[in-house]
Amino acid sequence: MQAVILSIGDELIMGQTIDTNSAWLSARFADMGIMTIHHKTVPDDTSAIVLALKDACTLSEVVVVTGGLGPTDDDLTRHALADFLKRPLDLHPPSLERIRAFFKSLGREMPVINRIQAMVPRGVEVLDNDWGTAPGLKVKVGKALVFLFPGVPREMMKMAERDVFPMFQNHGESTVLTEALHTFGAGESTVAEKLGELMRRDRNPLVGTTVSKGVVTVRIRSEAVTQMLARKQLAVIVKAVEARLETLIFGRGEETLAGVVGKLSEKMGVKVTTAESCTGGLTATMLTDEAGSSLYFVGGWVVYSNAMKTRELGVPASLIEREGAVSQAVACAMAEGALRQEAADWSISTTGIAGPDGGSDEKPVGTVWIGLGHRSESGIKSKAECFQFPGSREMVRDRAAKTALNMLRLALLK
Amino acid sequence: MQAVILSIGDELIMGQTIDTNSAWLSARFADMGIMTIHHKTVPDDTSAIVLALKDACTLSEVVVVTGGLGPTDDDLTRHALADFLKRPLDLHPPSLERIRAFFKSLGREMPVINRIQAMVPRGVEVLDNDWGTAPGLKVKVGKALVFLFPGVPREMMKMAERDVFPMFQNHGESTVLTEALHTFGAGESTVAEKLGELMRRDRNPLVGTTVSKGVVTVRIRSEAVTQMLARKQLAVIVKAVEARLETLIFGRGEETLAGVVGKLSEKMGVKVTTAESCTGGLTATMLTDEAGSSLYFVGGWVVYSNAMKTRELGVPASLIEREGAVSQAVACAMAEGALRQEAADWSISTTGIAGPDGGSDEKPVGTVWIGLGHRSESGIKSKAECFQFPGSREMVRDRAAKTALNMLRLALLK
Repeated sequence: MQAVILSIGDELIMGQTIDTNSAWLSARFADMGIMTIHHKTVPDDTSAIVLALKDACTLSEVVVVTGGLGPTDDDLTRHALADFLKRPLDLHPPSLERIRAFFKSLGREMPVINRIQAMVPRGVEVLDNDWGTAPGLKVKVGKALVFLFPGVPREMMKMAERDVFPMFQNHGESTVLTEALHTFGAGESTVAEKLGELMRRDRNPLVGTTVSKGVVTVRIRSEAVTQMLARKQLAVIVKAVEARLETLIFGRGEETLAGVVGKLSEKMGVKVTTAESCTGGLTATMLTDEAGSSLYFVGGWVVYSNAMKTRELGVPASLIEREGAVSQAVACAMAEGALRQEAADWSISTTGIAGPDGGSDEKPVGTVWIGLGHRSESGIKSKAECFQFPGSREMVRDRAAKTALNMLRLALLK
Repeated sequence: MQAVILSIGDELIMGQTIDTNSAWLSARFADMGIMTIHHKTVPDDTSAIVLALKDACTLSEVVVVTGGLGPTDDDLTRHALADFLKRPLDLHPPSLERIRAFFKSLGREMPVINRIQAMVPRGVEVLDNDWGTAPGLKVKVGKALVFLFPGVPREMMKMAERDVFPMFQNHGESTVLTEALHTFGAGESTVAEKLGELMRRDRNPLVGTTVSKGVVTVRIRSEAVTQMLARKQLAVIVKAVEARLETLIFGRGEETLAGVVGKLSEKMGVKVTTAESCTGGLTATMLTDEAGSSLYFVGGWVVYSNAMKTRELGVPASLIEREGAVSQAVACAMAEGALRQEAADWSISTTGIAGPDGGSDEKPVGTVWIGLGHRSESGIKSKAECFQFPGSREMVRDRAAKTALNMLRLALLK
């Protein structure tokens, strides 16, 4: 079974708003083994909408349309549907009542312009909207079942959950299950080389890679006639991928690098602190993005100036003078200083040149020393590694913070 | 002139990744008076890509395709283009050299699989990629000019800025000039109310608002037969908008709140420090996102634990005990402690409940006290304000950090 997702709106086609509905709908469809063959976005224009509907109904068995059901003059989806079906728009009195009641619940009179939202092409089924004013619509066109929903994500999602997905939960043909394994520390081509023939396009489960902000994700898609078989196939390939990528893999699905570091720290009962220079607080931000991070993160320093490195973390001014702020010795001194200052078991430190200025031949933009400090019974120890990150200031900082978290993750795994 | 934007990728069509490229490209086209007639997303499937290309070239004069130019087996855009043009793929030696050099600059050997990225359909122009491995492609098909770029937003944007937009800057019919004025501290409807009739849809320049992460942006679009007239019209409306919104406006175009705070601080020769609890380093991260921030930002603390608030910033444990960590007194003590500790003129502090847990009836999730400290000749003073931010943990933290920066901006403007 195949689906087409259409989104309607000038604000989408002019790039003022990013369409998130289509991705959400097709992810839900994919989970049920329904393949989306295309997403299409068209402006608030009757003939463009009619054309997109015609196309979609020819190509697929399920069509979901979002947007253009609002009350203003530029909301033309219901008119386009009427044109496409060659049927008139009739007033649907129960919908009018619901819209009036909706406004009443907000303590307001229904504005006259909202009456249009109760107009429905003749013979089209109305899907009640319990979360806003525009009702959804449903109609069979040839072999295609067409659903139309308001573009407000929250309303659309609620209505799709109620009216669309239950119809296709067990549509019989096949089940698709997916898994995403996230890696850090190697480029996409290195990951692909390690995966080798697992990535062949004629295989099932299908294995692909995507890359986003330094994280290379291995995506696995298993299709089978039964849920059980799809799960079995998926498990085999997940295992094979894990065997080849080992500790490059840090997590799955919604997991983040900082979240995984957090979980590990919590499980091991260790506390973490940060001492950042070039990342300027980004490492701490990533750690505290995770709810519950106060269980393992005590806090940290952004020692941006050299004076602050010395005063707050006890990095000797002479050391900075001799080795430079961007050096192995200073990265280690920062990591150790943080552990001397606060009761934590592990510390990570960063000092580097994020750019665009400040680089030299010897230490070009992108040079970052990352330190890892550890307090054990034998005292405080540290080590540091030097990295050369490519790209913009934003990229250098992002990769440096993630690399610091990853160094801590690998140390915790040992 | 009309454009079509195509995006290619299983991860997009399966909803694992949200397509932001299409919105960005069409927003840039809209600024130049080029209307996008549709966005379409198709999977990594040769025949689907060929069909989408055929359709796009029939309908429009500019086609931009993103995605599917990676090195792995599921990257099929260049094969699809070759199929569509009915031409073979040839090796493009200069591209191979560039890809080799790119890996070399990272201190690595080029993996064998990246060779495919130097293959180009015969007669197609190569657009160098200075930011990654996949070169862009450009080819005329009938009346349509087709551009193909890698799907990585940063690479795509850089290449489009260099190779696409300059070609259409003055495409003849009329001149469109735009300005974006960014505001912080009021909701979209408040901004719209203040703008009143300036926002009428039949006006030129056209004034609209968009909202992104707490920043309400007033977008002004001036269209005229000459550049000079468009500029004149635009200036009049910019002035009118400024008169109505006053200090709600913090910047224009590419300016950010942190960047504006930085510029002001640098101009006034003042130094800034941060003492963060609930924002966990995000305020410092925003400040240091700006190149050159070491000129005014000395550094800061992430005092996540109460013990660290006391030890590092001298916030009395008894005060935390009595007032709670999320309180006016603690926000002020943090801001003052930071200034006592390090030589800076201004400090900002945050302490609040970012959620999802930790809220109470008295202090629900989203409650954040923001402190502002100032060192003058008469000593260190501070004040704090309480805010109630709606939304997720991520939203609460983002709004809190931006509100802290905005409080500092308004103080510096006085």
